[in-house]
Amino acid sequence: MKLEVVTIGTELLLGQIIDTNAAELGRALAGAGVEVVRHVSVADRPEAIRAAVAEALDRTGFVLTTGGLGPTRDDITKREVAGLLGKPLELDAAVLRALEERFQRLGRAMPAVNRTQAEVPAGATVLPNPRGTAPGLWVEDRGRVVVMLPGVPSEMRGLLAEEVLPRLAQRNPGTVVRSRTVRTTGIAESALAERVGAIEEEIAPLTLAYLPSVEGVELRVTAWGLRADDAERRLAAATTQLRERAAEHCYGEDGTDLAAVVLNQLRARKARLVVAESCTGGLVSGRITAVPGASDVFIGGVVAYDNVVKSGMLDVPPELLERHGAVSEAVVAAMAEGVQRQFAVDAAIAVTGIAGPTGGTPEKPVGTVWMAARYGSEAPRALKRIFPGDRGEIRARAAQAAIDLLRRLLAGGGHQ
Amino acid sequence: MKLEVVTIGTELLLGQIIDTNAAELGRALAGAGVEVVRHVSVADRPEAIRAAVAEALDRTGFVLTTGGLGPTRDDITKREVAGLLGKPLELDAAVLRALEERFQRLGRAMPAVNRTQAEVPAGATVLPNPRGTAPGLWVEDRGRVVVMLPGVPSEMRGLLAEEVLPRLAQRNPGTVVRSRTVRTTGIAESALAERVGAIEEEIAPLTLAYLPSVEGVELRVTAWGLRADDAERRLAAATTQLRERAAEHCYGEDGTDLAAVVLNQLRARKARLVVAESCTGGLVSGRITAVPGASDVFIGGVVAYDNVVKSGMLDVPPELLERHGAVSEAVVAAMAEGVQRQFAVDAAIAVTGIAGPTGGTPEKPVGTVWMAARYGSEAPRALKRIFPGDRGEIRARAAQAAIDLLRRLLAGGGHQ
Repeated sequence: MKLEVVTIGTELLLGQIIDTNAAELGRALAGAGVEVVRHVSVADRPEAIRAAVAEALDRTGFVLTTGGLGPTRDDITKREVAGLLGKPLELDAAVLRALEERFQRLGRAMPAVNRTQAEVPAGATVLPNPRGTAPGLWVEDRGRVVVMLPGVPSEMRGLLAEEVLPRLAQRNPGTVVRSRTVRTTGIAESALAERVGAIEEEIAPLTLAYLPSVEGVELRVTAWGLRADDAERRLAAATTQLRERAAEHCYGEDGTDLAAVVLNQLRARKARLVVAESCTGGLVSGRITAVPGASDVFIGGVVAYDNVVKSGMLDVPPELLERHGAVSEAVVAAMAEGVQRQFAVDAAIAVTGIAGPTGGTPEKPVGTVWMAARYGSEAPRALKRIFPGDRGEIRARAAQAAIDLLRRLLAGGGHQ
Repeated sequence: MKLEVVTIGTELLLGQIIDTNAAELGRALAGAGVEVVRHVSVADRPEAIRAAVAEALDRTGFVLTTGGLGPTRDDITKREVAGLLGKPLELDAAVLRALEERFQRLGRAMPAVNRTQAEVPAGATVLPNPRGTAPGLWVEDRGRVVVMLPGVPSEMRGLLAEEVLPRLAQRNPGTVVRSRTVRTTGIAESALAERVGAIEEEIAPLTLAYLPSVEGVELRVTAWGLRADDAERRLAAATTQLRERAAEHCYGEDGTDLAAVVLNQLRARKARLVVAESCTGGLVSGRITAVPGASDVFIGGVVAYDNVVKSGMLDVPPELLERHGAVSEAVVAAMAEGVQRQFAVDAAIAVTGIAGPTGGTPEKPVGTVWMAARYGSEAPRALKRIFPGDRGEIRARAAQAAIDLLRRLLAGGGHQ
């Protein structure tokens, strides 16, 4: 089953708000086996709304709109859709009563302007909206369907879950659109593609997409319109294959966070972790403490931004800093050893680098980052990378890579 | 001048990522006086991409696409647009060289698959992308224009600012759509609205919007389709009024980051800053070090996640922890004093709280955060807040509020 989504609001096209409704609808509908084949955003203009809904109806016969159901002048979705389908707007007594009661409950008189919210296209099914004043509307016309939802995200979400998805499930028994994602890090998209190879034909009809970000590259496989058990079986087989091909670069699936993976590795060993970071300035600790329950593994950390802190709190010998510079293998190893000794724990991560925009040299350009991971009393494992991107991206990539270095060390697996 | 935006990627329709590019394009183009009249999202499917671009071209003659320019099989935008316009793809030697140099700089061999990224539609203008492997493309055909940008937000943003907007400005003299934003923090949206009052009629034809986030509430005024000098004059007057009404809650305008404001305050006093944080786990230091050039003010910090670190490294007396608990005025003040003494600097920020999801009690529910700021040798200023939201939101709000506490202390202004 397919439909199109039309999100309505001038503020969307001006970029004044980000259209989270579209993503949320896509996710929820896919989970119900409904494929959103196109998403269109238009401004609060009569002709734009009418054209977008008409074209979408012609293509798929099923359109879901958000926005433009409020009480103010720029809320014209209902009028345009009613006009397009040739249905007059009629005052719905039940909706009017619910509106009046709502205002009464809030101890306010209902402004006259809200009365228009009780008008519905003739024959429409009203979808009650306990979270706001605008009900949703489900209009059918010669086999075609237009569902109108309010644009306020919490109201849209409530109506979707309580009114729309149950109705769609009745029309669409059996099939689902479902995805699984294999998360990798420490390997570039193109290198990963070479490793994965031409898997697309093997996993068909499932599709594969590469999604790169500062945290790494995700491999997403999707089953479209299959029966739930068939989709699950195929997805499981495809993700197993992808995990094998991604090998040591894969750290988990779906929403798995790398920091949570490393915390679990350490928890299994009853080990505790500390962090010493310079260029990432708190982001490594921040990533780790973002995981609920990190406190049974993570003790704390030192943000050694100035060399004074590197030598004073982490016992990095000043002569190392002088001879090799703060961004060097010798210093990052000394930072890892120093912080581990300082807190007397089993595991440590250290990072030092040049996040830019200034501070680069021909030998150590902006993006140069040394990372170290240490477990127990063996020599720290150190790694140098030159990360692309701006200051923020370099820092985010460095935090991810530093955490990943410890993951690889604990897994006993290959170097990056 | 009008154009349409087509964002390409199955992940957008599945809702697996939120389409921030569309909003960012809308905002940037409006600022350049270009109206986005429609935004369409389609999946990585040949016929869907081709149809969306063709229809948009028919309506406005000018289309901007994002996504589908990467090196993998699902990246097909370039091929479909070239096919639609009847232009063959040709290998561009300069793009190939730039790609090879990029991989060389990062110390890696270029995978063969990246070679396709050097193919461009015949006659296209290549928009160099120093942040990634996929250049942008500007293709003109009998008065119609298709601009293709990569989907990675930072790359899209860079190409837009450096290559696309300057070219559009040449085509579009005269009026602008322009906004200015007054940033506030430490005051709720409704309380801010009461302070600001009914300013909308005074500033008309400018419009006002309230944009709340974890960093505070932004007040955005927008001038629509005015001449640039008229827009600037009206925006300046409106922002002055808004700043006056927001008073001490306002910390800057537009892209101003609160951490940068505090760094500037300290820089002017030649003071240096340290941070001790528990529940924010590195985020306060991370916010501060995200500002380029933070290193002349910010020395470092301690992430005192475990009480062992609070007492061991920050000299918080264990009896304080026992008597008052880690989340208390006494402990946060001792943390600020301890870290300041430890590093022997002028200014310190400390945070301790309960970020959840567990750990709350009736007296100290999840979201309870104590913050302290200290400058010189006076007693630290401490503040308790109970923040709403999930773990991530509570941490982000706490980091912002802790930095803001020092801003208010240094400004000599009122308590939150």
